[in-house]
Amino acid sequence: MTRLHDPAAHTFASDNYAGAHPEVLQAMIEANGGHVASYGADPYTRRLGEVVAEVFGEGASLDPVLTGTGANVAALQALVPRWGAVICATTAHVYTDEGGAPERLGGIKLLTVPTPDGKFTPELIDRQAYGWGDQQRPQPLAVTITQSTELGTVYTPDELRAITDRSHAHGMTVHLDGARLANAAASLGVPLRALTRDAGVDSVSLGGTKNGLVLGESVVTFSEEARAGLVFLRKMDAQLASKMRFTSAQFLAMFEDDLWLRSATRANAMATRLGAALASLPGVTITQAVEANAVFVVLPIEAVEPLRAAHHFYDWNRATGEVRLMCSFDTTEEHVDRLVADLRALLG
Amino acid sequence: MTRLHDPAAHTFASDNYAGAHPEVLQAMIEANGGHVASYGADPYTRRLGEVVAEVFGEGASLDPVLTGTGANVAALQALVPRWGAVICATTAHVYTDEGGAPERLGGIKLLTVPTPDGKFTPELIDRQAYGWGDQQRPQPLAVTITQSTELGTVYTPDELRAITDRSHAHGMTVHLDGARLANAAASLGVPLRALTRDAGVDSVSLGGTKNGLVLGESVVTFSEEARAGLVFLRKMDAQLASKMRFTSAQFLAMFEDDLWLRSATRANAMATRLGAALASLPGVTITQAVEANAVFVVLPIEAVEPLRAAHHFYDWNRATGEVRLMCSFDTTEEHVDRLVADLRALLG
Amino acid sequence: MTRLHDPAAHTFASDNYAGAHPEVLQAMIEANGGHVASYGADPYTRRLGEVVAEVFGEGASLDPVLTGTGANVAALQALVPRWGAVICATTAHVYTDEGGAPERLGGIKLLTVPTPDGKFTPELIDRQAYGWGDQQRPQPLAVTITQSTELGTVYTPDELRAITDRSHAHGMTVHLDGARLANAAASLGVPLRALTRDAGVDSVSLGGTKNGLVLGESVVTFSEEARAGLVFLRKMDAQLASKMRFTSAQFLAMFEDDLWLRSATRANAMATRLGAALASLPGVTITQAVEANAVFVVLPIEAVEPLRAAHHFYDWNRATGEVRLMCSFDTTEEHVDRLVADLRALLG
Amino acid sequence: MTRLHDPAAHTFASDNYAGAHPEVLQAMIEANGGHVASYGADPYTRRLGEVVAEVFGEGASLDPVLTGTGANVAALQALVPRWGAVICATTAHVYTDEGGAPERLGGIKLLTVPTPDGKFTPELIDRQAYGWGDQQRPQPLAVTITQSTELGTVYTPDELRAITDRSHAHGMTVHLDGARLANAAASLGVPLRALTRDAGVDSVSLGGTKNGLVLGESVVTFSEEARAGLVFLRKMDAQLASKMRFTSAQFLAMFEDDLWLRSATRANAMATRLGAALASLPGVTITQAVEANAVFVVLPIEAVEPLRAAHHFYDWNRATGEVRLMCSFDTTEEHVDRLVADLRALLG
Repeated sequence: MTRLHDPAAHTFASDNYAGAHPEVLQAMIEANGGHVASYGADPYTRRLGEVVAEVFGEGASLDPVLTGTGANVAALQALVPRWGAVICATTAHVYTDEGGAPERLGGIKLLTVPTPDGKFTPELIDRQAYGWGDQQRPQPLAVTITQSTELGTVYTPDELRAITDRSHAHGMTVHLDGARLANAAASLGVPLRALTRDAGVDSVSLGGTKNGLVLGESVVTFSEEARAGLVFLRKMDAQLASKMRFTSAQFLAMFEDDLWLRSATRANAMATRLGAALASLPGVTITQAVEANAVFVVLPIEAVEPLRAAHHFYDWNRATGEVRLMCSFDTTEEHVDRLVADLRALLG
Repeated sequence: MTRLHDPAAHTFASDNYAGAHPEVLQAMIEANGGHVASYGADPYTRRLGEVVAEVFGEGASLDPVLTGTGANVAALQALVPRWGAVICATTAHVYTDEGGAPERLGGIKLLTVPTPDGKFTPELIDRQAYGWGDQQRPQPLAVTITQSTELGTVYTPDELRAITDRSHAHGMTVHLDGARLANAAASLGVPLRALTRDAGVDSVSLGGTKNGLVLGESVVTFSEEARAGLVFLRKMDAQLASKMRFTSAQFLAMFEDDLWLRSATRANAMATRLGAALASLPGVTITQAVEANAVFVVLPIEAVEPLRAAHHFYDWNRATGEVRLMCSFDTTEEHVDRLVADLRALLG
Repeated sequence: MTRLHDPAAHTFASDNYAGAHPEVLQAMIEANGGHVASYGADPYTRRLGEVVAEVFGEGASLDPVLTGTGANVAALQALVPRWGAVICATTAHVYTDEGGAPERLGGIKLLTVPTPDGKFTPELIDRQAYGWGDQQRPQPLAVTITQSTELGTVYTPDELRAITDRSHAHGMTVHLDGARLANAAASLGVPLRALTRDAGVDSVSLGGTKNGLVLGESVVTFSEEARAGLVFLRKMDAQLASKMRFTSAQFLAMFEDDLWLRSATRANAMATRLGAALASLPGVTITQAVEANAVFVVLPIEAVEPLRAAHHFYDWNRATGEVRLMCSFDTTEEHVDRLVADLRALLG
Repeated sequence: MTRLHDPAAHTFASDNYAGAHPEVLQAMIEANGGHVASYGADPYTRRLGEVVAEVFGEGASLDPVLTGTGANVAALQALVPRWGAVICATTAHVYTDEGGAPERLGGIKLLTVPTPDGKFTPELIDRQAYGWGDQQRPQPLAVTITQSTELGTVYTPDELRAITDRSHAHGMTVHLDGARLANAAASLGVPLRALTRDAGVDSVSLGGTKNGLVLGESVVTFSEEARAGLVFLRKMDAQLASKMRFTSAQFLAMFEDDLWLRSATRANAMATRLGAALASLPGVTITQAVEANAVFVVLPIEAVEPLRAAHHFYDWNRATGEVRLMCSFDTTEEHVDRLVADLRALLG
């Protein structure tokens, strides 16, 4: 097959515009050849189990799945019974961007709360945390939060603990959508465990693709309760890879030599550099704290389209001119500086 | 990441015990690097569209998905409305091996018919083709067949045409589960198109993984009706890969230089060789015609476990001692001959 | 069976605290005895079809179902395909009060818009009317509105027409949740047809229970498209009564001698009387226009519980002290005047 | 409303062709008038709870629902988690006659077993009772049986106990579809409790409509586990009546003065009389033991249509000429004798 694209192209559109980290592809090549058992009974998936116990502590499980939507749906289905509902932010990916899969595939009612910055607090949770026993209300039995958030902000371990304590006090479990958990951990300089198990989180959708995998997501759980039925749900949600060795090998690559951290650290650093440079430009307003690998910014309206033509990024709010600039594991200082220079030129 | 398995190991367990064909991994490496648009707006997916139009004719579409279960569910959801039911064989993978996904994820009622050899006929279809307009009966609006079948048998183009004609006469569409369509086409020496579009099939789950991909399945359709809503269903069924360039690149590798045909031809030839050799042994009964890459055989009971220890295969029917021996794209004459020699030795 | 309640008791809690209108029970007695075909093939259901054609015009169909939730779910499932989403107000009963049935039973994604008074406008619809063709967005293909609304307000025929015109221009159909449609028609002094078919509405959940039936709801449609699959959906949504003669007889009683109008007119008149009397009291604020059979009012906080003890009603907003007072077909001037007198006494 | 049918008409088509027992309608009239709380917080539903504890013993609960399909779906959803499957007979109503509701509304995979007479045995259950822990197999976690069966046969308490013991030994619960449980109890001369709770059954769909109610079904459970989430499931399955007093009043009428028993005894006696008379006629073959209120019989082919024109009944198997004759609470000796006389005349 012939290459059909320019391997030097770069955008600020999304961290899934990037390809895979070369170490990840190399791991897949190592895992190839010969026969191993399918559906997870292979040595790579077995080894991954050991690595996960090292990273998250004894009793932690990681079950590979195929998409972030699939991870969220299966994780939430395992957490709540058929009559359970899940509280989430109005901006949550699970509510706005998954084609209705949680409701339609998962049969899960989502109870939404508007948040100022994509982050929940105990008080915000309380707005939907009521009505247990009321037969006409979907029963709020879990909360799902996103880390780093859809707005590029990050929960500290203390903020997470406040949320999980309040949720648990209400008899609700806590799920964390960690499509970009690596970026949050890198940002805070803490291990993955500090933002999940040690903060009281019950179940995590741990993302791989946005961190540099070809294709790989997972559900990480810390108890038998949180994992109840998960392997059956994974199959019935069409998330079970037959040649699972290849998915597991990617995750092994991600954990080995801290590839996840190296990739996230770079992406975050580029966002910080970008945010700082933009903030110094006239007529440019940074709208969210730059805490992970995204920069939300309002640009002078006449600069948006010319800049987009060269660097590609998405609108966040057409009404206000707010756009989202996303950095990836392969974003370089040069990419950032070129965008800033182009914008400076446009602003005259 | 370190290799954890023996790349020389071989089994007769399943074609998903095999790894990926090296040309497939090479295509993924070519597709890597730089940024391209996600969710299918990349040059590899675009090129794949052109290749599909060459292979299946103008107007054909191939939408990549992630699992065979996901392909079947999304394809059937696109074919029938909420109140539609789908007729299938009692042995169909979609009915027995997909964790209830068609019913539970897809909301599709399956109406089953026992078949002698996994193959439908117009007469067998008629057993469930009734009750349109009866408000208490799920409305039979599609038929799904498997090619090559779960029993290693193959439909000829004429047999397919008889089925699709009858189904269409009843106002029902026809879906083909082609997880091993390549093996059927190789067996019959006809192009993929002859077994699908030209035979009147409306929608196909075209498999890649069992033919040598890392991970890749797809839905191929030949009309706007059969593809209605498919891209939305793909997302809500959690089958949409963000870095789709890698899935599409695998399919491109499969179609280029007829890799699909080379791989299927080899697997089939090994099954033929195996079947012929086994048939000549005393006390051994071949139970299904060997028409693709599987051999169904009743072995002398005392030979089963020792042989399994060395070559690994699955029971098909414990009551009768029938086992299934599956050949893959990487099965060699040596693998086959070794199994036959081992069995001959066991039989004394 | 012995009577266990006080038949003179009255509340302002809900129109489903009332029993059935005596003419309704009389119709059930008439329909009893002997054998008639089940599942709708009886003379009462047949006659109902004729009556419906008189009320709503040729080509209109009424399919009896069992609950308001069931009516809404089946009607919406018939209107939109699996990938369709439905736009509704944040206060819509279908979103807040149906136990998640539309999402979980119906597989329908709801796209919500906050409204000031429970009423949609073309501009409010536009807030969610976008993204057709975007594979990650549930496709907005229908709008559902409530008449009279959950806040006791009423759409005029012109307001409805503006909504249906805009929706149709977007390629979306319009469903009307008419659990209290009778109250709206009585309020405006127009026939049911003027608020539905003639206003461009495609499908209606026409309520019976809140208008004085024992148990009976229905889906009214005006085209084959809007009714597609409805009888199959009714069965698979567990809404098909076997002895349908009794449900149909209730609806016949409702339409004959304009019982629906007499009942709704009385309930509305009592709400008007109540609203007017309350508005004249010091410290009492009517919060929504009294256009149907509900009065939304903020009462002096110290009066709420004593008044509730005698007249029973529900809180609408605990934060503001807003309560909802609901009038029924059997509410009398005396009931209203007694509540007002009691409140006046409490206010000193 | 005018009467539109002949109250003297009688058929052998189905027990839902009959109307309601006059005592049932009288109970609804008693329950009418004035205001009581809706959704089950009324004195009739409260009293029903006490009666149920008398009939089935302390700790038993009866939750009214609206259709047999709704009862079965909600009961099974409460018994098994999302990944659970339910074993049933191939002839089970839940599998063949409910429009796919268990699968599509309930998300429940049904695992079927052919039975000779509609009755399960421990050995038949074992045919599907395997595969726990196999991630690709829907997990068999409950068994559902029908009493009296779809073929008019009856399980004895000992037969039930054998089934529940085997099921429980497998870790599976047992649901009983009791649309005609009254007929079975009347046939065996035992209380309802002997065929349910005392026989180890966990959950029952207790039918009312076929026993003479206007409209009323229910789920009866004997433990908190079997009832888990049932009231929430009832709402989300659209089975919650707002004016529940009327449903509960019907059930009170059914239990008071043993109306259920009187009605079932009469229907059974008529079937016995009919079966005995038919068996004595030449060329007539009774095909199932007449143990409840149904007679399955093969009639001489030339007699079928003339007899059907006068007495209306359904074909059971067109290939063999087998028909089903159903007796109801209002079937009389005269009805039976007239059919027999007519048949005798036809046979010359």
